[in-house]
Amino acid sequence: MSTHSEHSAVTVLGLGPMGRALAGAFLDAGLRTTVWNRTPGRDGELIERGAVSARSVEEAVAAGELTVVCVVNYDASDAILRRDGVTDALRGRTVVNLSADTPDRARDTSDWAAGHGIRYLDGAIMTPINTIGAPSAVFIYSGPAELYEEHRPVLDTLGGTHTHLSEQIGRAAAYDIALLDIFWTAMAGYAHALAVARAEGISARELAPFAQGIGAILPPLFQETAEEVDRGTFSGEDNPLTSGASTMSHVVHTSESHGIDAGVMRAAEGMARRAIGLGHGTDGFIRVAEMLGRSGK
Amino acid sequence: MSTHSEHSAVTVLGLGPMGRALAGAFLDAGLRTTVWNRTPGRDGELIERGAVSARSVEEAVAAGELTVVCVVNYDASDAILRRDGVTDALRGRTVVNLSADTPDRARDTSDWAAGHGIRYLDGAIMTPINTIGAPSAVFIYSGPAELYEEHRPVLDTLGGTHTHLSEQIGRAAAYDIALLDIFWTAMAGYAHALAVARAEGISARELAPFAQGIGAILPPLFQETAEEVDRGTFSGEDNPLTSGASTMSHVVHTSESHGIDAGVMRAAEGMARRAIGLGHGTDGFIRVAEMLGRSGK
Ligand SMILES: NC(=O)c1ccc[n+]([C@@H]2O[C@H](COP(=O)([O-])OP(=O)(O)OC[C@H]3O[C@@H](n4cnc5c(N)ncnc54)[C@H](OP(=O)(O)O)[C@@H]3O)[C@@H](O)[C@H]2O)c1
Ligand SMILES: NC(=O)c1ccc[n+]([C@@H]2O[C@H](COP(=O)([O-])OP(=O)(O)OC[C@H]3O[C@@H](n4cnc5c(N)ncnc54)[C@H](OP(=O)(O)O)[C@@H]3O)[C@@H](O)[C@H]2O)c1
Repeated sequence: MSTHSEHSAVTVLGLGPMGRALAGAFLDAGLRTTVWNRTPGRDGELIERGAVSARSVEEAVAAGELTVVCVVNYDASDAILRRDGVTDALRGRTVVNLSADTPDRARDTSDWAAGHGIRYLDGAIMTPINTIGAPSAVFIYSGPAELYEEHRPVLDTLGGTHTHLSEQIGRAAAYDIALLDIFWTAMAGYAHALAVARAEGISARELAPFAQGIGAILPPLFQETAEEVDRGTFSGEDNPLTSGASTMSHVVHTSESHGIDAGVMRAAEGMARRAIGLGHGTDGFIRVAEMLGRSGK
Repeated sequence: MSTHSEHSAVTVLGLGPMGRALAGAFLDAGLRTTVWNRTPGRDGELIERGAVSARSVEEAVAAGELTVVCVVNYDASDAILRRDGVTDALRGRTVVNLSADTPDRARDTSDWAAGHGIRYLDGAIMTPINTIGAPSAVFIYSGPAELYEEHRPVLDTLGGTHTHLSEQIGRAAAYDIALLDIFWTAMAGYAHALAVARAEGISARELAPFAQGIGAILPPLFQETAEEVDRGTFSGEDNPLTSGASTMSHVVHTSESHGIDAGVMRAAEGMARRAIGLGHGTDGFIRVAEMLGRSGK
């Protein structure tokens, strides 16, 4: 733990699973930690561990220089922060919003903060709650570098890797969107695969070790294909799109033969077929990234 | 290399990227390797390395006891194998079909083989071509265990892990379907994420290290949630479905604000919303597997 942070105070607004994990890590680091949540009663264990329970948001944010917000989205953080009493109490203080939302919402919140003399950093958490306080946690931030440096000793007590991506306030949310895109799509594939496997008489426990094997081949493929996308080359020499599209159609067919909706794979196969239709059949699957980007504005 | 295989002969039908990799590994192991491909001229490098190029499928399969087929799908393998001359030449010999397709097609091929006195194993390859001959390759098989044991010394020369899953001939294809479901859905998410990131001014190379981080959190999550699915518990204590659905909608919104199709994530979010509508909002995302399975027959 950094010696700079030992007697620092920090406020956590939002005590869902992630907010509680953050507050717990601050407490473990010996920080004076004040907590608040819309629905009362979520702070019992944190109080036992030494947290101060604030009766209002105003009281909570007044307890220290740094307020970390972690709620479901920016509709929720707006509902908490954008009230006169709270705005007044935050003047001259710092808010770090670790809730997930879009780059637009981050920019809008930064504008609101600037209009009220509130110092603002946007951020996102890219790992599950069991990583918080541990080396595998991943946090990303954007906003004023100087403000980030100032609060880094406190933020560092959350463990893991902290990266300041950019002064552009929307950048952390943009990374978050792209990374959640990968995460939820993969989880959707996994949930679907478990359903299809079960329909074929294969238990989740039987499939899991092989699924982990698939998980293990993804990171190096992510790296290789990223380089291709930046270079604008999409070699299908190792695995052409036509071959992938063929196996995708097997997944659709087998799912639907069991009455299991295959909407996700149908959409994925649709992208592959579109790229093949555009003449890219001998390219690798990652050509799809370039094709999607072409229609982007 | 197994001493049993040193003077064995093996035939490879299909010289796409994977067929060539398989033939290359057999050659590296010192096996007498005969190759054939529908389109001539794909065997140049293999011949240099010692492969025998057959002028016909009949000639190819007659060259040894074991024929490995690796083509795009079973329409292709049927086109190659189900001709009188080939069927006659295969009588009493063994075919291992490592092409990808559905369990139905594997069963149908097994029936055809049985009807012609051909010994048959079905299989699938779960790793990319650069793993073939290396410890990270993963092969799965189903069919008669005795037949598998007989040919194992030759198959082992392909490197990596070989698993005989079941005597039920469709089992390897069923695993293959479920694992390709995970693989292609994840790759679709990644390709899409790269397109959205680029629209936000983030290069693939910048995103890749964080994408690899997402890749790293998947395998342990696959394991944990598999246990939940088999137990029939779906705790959202760490990360409720409502929270996930909220971030999925951010992905859809941000993609579409850039004119990028979000069909895959729309379908994934649709599954999450359906589960929430069924009263499972406080469960974890993996509840979706159970929900999909319920509609399965
Ligand atoms: N859990 C994870 O594994 C994980 C991982 C990475 C990032 N994140 C992100 O961390 C953030 C928090 O996630 P979480 O896991 O703690 O659960 P969550 O369900 O996303 O958020 C729950 C929190 O949001 C509050 N909230 C919801 N609507 C509100 C409103 N209208 N006004 C005020 N508060 C409101 C809840 O208060 P009540 O208790 O009053 O409902 C609770 O404190 C999310 O943005 C999530 O994407 C989570
Ligand atoms: N590449 C990988 O990373 C990978 C990984 C795991 C599993 N696999 C599986 O391995 C199998 C082979 O894949 P691949 O990568 O080599 O590429 P592929 O494009 O799936 O298959 C190409 C092979 O199929 C043959 N073929 C296609 N249609 C045919 C037909 N009607 N009659 C006869 N032959 C036909 C091609 O012959 P021509 O040259 O004459 O067109 C070529 O030999 C597939 O099932 C694939 O899913 C591949």
